[in-house]
Amino acid sequence: MRNLTLLTDLYQLTMGYGYFREGKQEQIAVFDIFFRPNSLITYSVAAGTEQAAEYLENLRFNEDDIAYLRSLGLFSEEFLAYLAELRFTGDVYAVREGEIVFPYEPIVTVKAPMIQAQLVETALLTFINHQTLIASKSAKICAAAGGPVMEFGLRRAQGADAGIYGARAAIIGGCASTSDVYAGKLFNVPVSGTMAHSWVMNFPDELTAFRAYAESFPENCLLLVDTYDSLHSGVPNAITVFRELREKGYEPKGIRLDSGDLAYLSKEARKMLDAAGFPNAVICASGDLDENSIRSLKEQGARIDLWGVGTKLITSADMPALGGVYKLAAVYENGVEIPKIKLSDTTEKITNPSLKEVYRLYDRKTDKAIADLIVRFDETIDESKPLTICHPTERWKKMTLTDFTARKLRVKLFENGTRLVGSAPLSEHAEYFKREYARFWEEYTRLDMPHIYKVDLSDSLFELKRQMVERKGRGE
Amino acid sequence: MRNLTLLTDLYQLTMGYGYFREGKQEQIAVFDIFFRPNSLITYSVAAGTEQAAEYLENLRFNEDDIAYLRSLGLFSEEFLAYLAELRFTGDVYAVREGEIVFPYEPIVTVKAPMIQAQLVETALLTFINHQTLIASKSAKICAAAGGPVMEFGLRRAQGADAGIYGARAAIIGGCASTSDVYAGKLFNVPVSGTMAHSWVMNFPDELTAFRAYAESFPENCLLLVDTYDSLHSGVPNAITVFRELREKGYEPKGIRLDSGDLAYLSKEARKMLDAAGFPNAVICASGDLDENSIRSLKEQGARIDLWGVGTKLITSADMPALGGVYKLAAVYENGVEIPKIKLSDTTEKITNPSLKEVYRLYDRKTDKAIADLIVRFDETIDESKPLTICHPTERWKKMTLTDFTARKLRVKLFENGTRLVGSAPLSEHAEYFKREYARFWEEYTRLDMPHIYKVDLSDSLFELKRQMVERKGRGE
Repeated sequence: MRNLTLLTDLYQLTMGYGYFREGKQEQIAVFDIFFRPNSLITYSVAAGTEQAAEYLENLRFNEDDIAYLRSLGLFSEEFLAYLAELRFTGDVYAVREGEIVFPYEPIVTVKAPMIQAQLVETALLTFINHQTLIASKSAKICAAAGGPVMEFGLRRAQGADAGIYGARAAIIGGCASTSDVYAGKLFNVPVSGTMAHSWVMNFPDELTAFRAYAESFPENCLLLVDTYDSLHSGVPNAITVFRELREKGYEPKGIRLDSGDLAYLSKEARKMLDAAGFPNAVICASGDLDENSIRSLKEQGARIDLWGVGTKLITSADMPALGGVYKLAAVYENGVEIPKIKLSDTTEKITNPSLKEVYRLYDRKTDKAIADLIVRFDETIDESKPLTICHPTERWKKMTLTDFTARKLRVKLFENGTRLVGSAPLSEHAEYFKREYARFWEEYTRLDMPHIYKVDLSDSLFELKRQMVERKGRGE
Repeated sequence: MRNLTLLTDLYQLTMGYGYFREGKQEQIAVFDIFFRPNSLITYSVAAGTEQAAEYLENLRFNEDDIAYLRSLGLFSEEFLAYLAELRFTGDVYAVREGEIVFPYEPIVTVKAPMIQAQLVETALLTFINHQTLIASKSAKICAAAGGPVMEFGLRRAQGADAGIYGARAAIIGGCASTSDVYAGKLFNVPVSGTMAHSWVMNFPDELTAFRAYAESFPENCLLLVDTYDSLHSGVPNAITVFRELREKGYEPKGIRLDSGDLAYLSKEARKMLDAAGFPNAVICASGDLDENSIRSLKEQGARIDLWGVGTKLITSADMPALGGVYKLAAVYENGVEIPKIKLSDTTEKITNPSLKEVYRLYDRKTDKAIADLIVRFDETIDESKPLTICHPTERWKKMTLTDFTARKLRVKLFENGTRLVGSAPLSEHAEYFKREYARFWEEYTRLDMPHIYKVDLSDSLFELKRQMVERKGRGE
């Protein structure tokens, strides 16, 4: 495993040195990771907290790292000696992998000595921003497809990790498999893929190429039919080979279309396969797909059973960064919490102060999610009593819940630097997302003009925030 | 170092197995990496070939990998034994890191036994697509900025590698430094960064925060002035601290603006700093910048000396994938080249057959690039004779060069699996790009409506292509 301790912005270290010189390095600070609303993501699928946890567990500057930092000429020997001994000793609260999350919710909270909390900001944001972005994009694409989606994007990924952990996130968001063999091995998830155009081009003709493939993979024969002419060459040749396979006792898997008018071609290919006696041969389509083109194909009646999605998933092409932030929420002095707030002229950019907890409230009858509630950390929710929740800024908008359950959205991932929750098989995270997704009314998750799911603040948290904004506004 | 041998698409292995069963695994094949034109990239800056070379040098399935492949139930034991012994034994031709390249040019050519050539496709595309994309974006941003640009994007990168190798590519494309300490150490390039808003928020007031920072970094004091109010609080407090620094014998570095109207704020801050006697204090700006916003700021007369660019550079936000492809150009039978071509209804998508070479032609008087010429591999160019070049498809468009030099655009990177060119310091690649960039008329590299730089085919290559298209068109 690579030691990624230096995967941080230089300013985390310069600030760390400053805190060290001020004697503030051990002051406990609380930082939240959350993201702000944007037009493209109405809900997000959290991912990457396992990689964040591995990073925290392994945080340790080795001798080379210290020598490099010394060479920058910025830090004292005392500070370098301090860094050499530094380990992560804090607490971390985090949502589960695959949890559906919304803007402003602290999906991860780090409570740790200031210098540690700053140091880990960058890597935590990198892992969680990236994987949450791709898991969310995957969820949208899979929702549009309705059927199995194969992740095909490695060659267009932004480097090896983007391919590997992008595939991981895509699986959490609902993809059935990945073409990336490295990810398949690392995460023990299904891998898929059959042939490229170069295979077909490398035989004297298409039929010979198909026959050669069928001989090698009689049980897994999915043929790429668009190298020359899908309907006049590819599909007829595939049918010839499928008949030969059947004579040998094998059922063919199907065909793949990778170019052209996928709606028209898939409908015609379906008719040809059906007429030839292969109604179970699947039609797989690929080629610059995303949730929008998939929906359009389905509206046109395309007969596509299996979708291969590459570039636009692995890069989240229409929004290639999530923009999650890491903001100071509190510091501790003599064991007492001093809440912190960041003001902004833009009301939505004012942060929520203090250590917090997040609850998801479900209707007991339908088991569907009603709203999320951000509270101060020590608040409790009594399910036996009616609960009135208010809009986070427009407090006159209220709703009283009577028959509900409340679930803590986050688990304690680290306590005093010890990891409390290990890694789980990726399939469990994917299952978890699927299960929780089903607990949302589709009005909240649909692709067009979804209802905005409510994320409210408790009265206590709202009151704290209001007072702090007023005091700051008076220049205190 | 991670063993990335499995960083490939499954179909490379299923095709490899097919070739193995056909006895074709040792047949020599030639594949080219090139990209097609698109509206956003008029020229590209090649990067990532060193990572590609490291991958090829270290290509080797270890026991774990073989066990994993066995578990898929797709491959015979003979094939797995073959894979266990497989090393890269081919030849590779590649452009230098930092070379300016254009659509259709084979920037990398792999000539290797078929199974190897297929196997390495995915990783080579991943490395080269990613880094070429970011180096090209960096070149555009740096051209717009005119002054030093700091790469700040790690937290928004698509995973650790996207941050690390994205920083590498950004430096090749012209960035002066990166905030990414890991990349700084790995590539021995300048790192930069000072403080975040959390530093300022963590002191009783802004002045105290600035003073504390100045004490730690008297020689490198760049203060973030927008936490509360840039012009009414941040800049005045910075000036106070700068005066105190000067009394102690230090000159301040400057200020950073990270929000608000950067054009207005920078002009006002410039006046304030000048009036206070700090004309050399730089003004650094950051906040969602790219080449377009930077040009707009400059048009507005912004007084910004130093640019911090994050998300939009590290993700190439307006085009997050380059889309480079890897296409079969030839196979060899009994030592004789059989050129291969991929037809398409779209003329631009028809590939260029056979093993090729690329020359860049320069005017001897001005030392400026005139055009590139793709030729068959064994063609030579005689600089002592006039050379007539033709448009790649519209052959009646001709130009005759008389006083020119011709430079091979690619070097032989591997011969029979042995790497011939080692890695060089990143600063050399950045210098190389800078030097070659100066050899292009700005009409070709400007951001708006650039001239299209000519990439022509030699008569011999054109004739081969024409004949192959005609034969294929007749169904041969």
